[in-house]
Amino acid sequence: MTMRTDTASGPSLEALYGEVQHFYARHMQLLDSGAAEEWARGFTEDGAFWAPTLPEPARGRAVLAGGVRKTAAELAEAGETHRHLISMLSVTPEEDGSLRVRSYAQVIATAKGGEPRLYRMCVCDDVLVRDGGELLISERRVTRDDMP
Amino acid sequence: MTMRTDTASGPSLEALYGEVQHFYARHMQLLDSGAAEEWARGFTEDGAFWAPTLPEPARGRAVLAGGVRKTAAELAEAGETHRHLISMLSVTPEEDGSLRVRSYAQVIATAKGGEPRLYRMCVCDDVLVRDGGELLISERRVTRDDMP
Amino acid sequence: MTMRTDTASGPSLEALYGEVQHFYARHMQLLDSGAAEEWARGFTEDGAFWAPTLPEPARGRAVLAGGVRKTAAELAEAGETHRHLISMLSVTPEEDGSLRVRSYAQVIATAKGGEPRLYRMCVCDDVLVRDGGELLISERRVTRDDMP
Repeated sequence: MTMRTDTASGPSLEALYGEVQHFYARHMQLLDSGAAEEWARGFTEDGAFWAPTLPEPARGRAVLAGGVRKTAAELAEAGETHRHLISMLSVTPEEDGSLRVRSYAQVIATAKGGEPRLYRMCVCDDVLVRDGGELLISERRVTRDDMP
Repeated sequence: MTMRTDTASGPSLEALYGEVQHFYARHMQLLDSGAAEEWARGFTEDGAFWAPTLPEPARGRAVLAGGVRKTAAELAEAGETHRHLISMLSVTPEEDGSLRVRSYAQVIATAKGGEPRLYRMCVCDDVLVRDGGELLISERRVTRDDMP
Repeated sequence: MTMRTDTASGPSLEALYGEVQHFYARHMQLLDSGAAEEWARGFTEDGAFWAPTLPEPARGRAVLAGGVRKTAAELAEAGETHRHLISMLSVTPEEDGSLRVRSYAQVIATAKGGEPRLYRMCVCDDVLVRDGGELLISERRVTRDDMP
């Protein structure tokens, strides 16, 4: 309700825009540094993540953090760094106070001693909600441009 | 006139910055999804687009939309997705109330089953004007880093 | 002191976010166009730059500008354009009024007649301070993902 009031007018939506961008910057820096639990706290308790390689969505912070820990260990083993660059965010406030956010996600992979390469090009469709002033992801749907 | 007042001071320019970024995010998402007419409505009625491969500027929404429809059909035929990532926007308010916006544009191409690749690196010089509260592009000049 | 007041609350930090992004956009456009002196004026008089390939930090505007002039001449000689794309900025206001800014930096290189390529993937840790209303970099530490 508070959010609807906040974002009913253009300027307030635009003020919100920086906040949403900032949220993604911190969220993805946590992911790329392997801070699995802190990254997972960017989701609601029962947050759901649909990824193109998963048969069903990953659900809940513990499951989400577990996936990131596994990937971080594999990358460390391989001596590779991944960076998630979120850009071109479009933000749509919904009636219920949530925000739909569509963005582009480049994943850039760099091996020690190697050239960086553009590993994935994705579109990320999130639903963000407010919890005690903070933005949290309740749903994330990722699609990859290389997959049908 | 209204805009000059809005942007005469630093903080207002910065508030405007999010709005301009958001404009580009939505504009380029329309382009990449092949929504030709909606994309073209981001230009003024007589908006002009100078591209390095065109002998003269494309002018007017109908012409602009036609170009996008053609490209979208070719990409669909080739099974390829293009993403336009606009970044590093510098925004300069002009005396007449318009905004000069210089940005970098990465174009990323991905074939189904293939690796994404950085297809083009461009600089985009736009003039934005207000029409009934909305931002519209009156002029766009694109240069490519690979062309002399 | 003024800055602490400005950024003590959430909304003001978010208003600042656009200003910081805008600062980087102009700063890097100056770098990429070879405007060495103007770029160096984005640092404090005694600003320091730690780069992974330097044995010690480059310090002061004259030294910083000299480095950029040299690189710009080499790139012109090679017929190559570099673009620095700063993204995913996280901004943390410090007690002393300065801002810690962590960002991702893609460097994209394009030869005339060639395909653009992702040349470097870096993380940039800056300290920004206010001087007469303007943001200036007092410290920059760059790390490259391909280096140990």
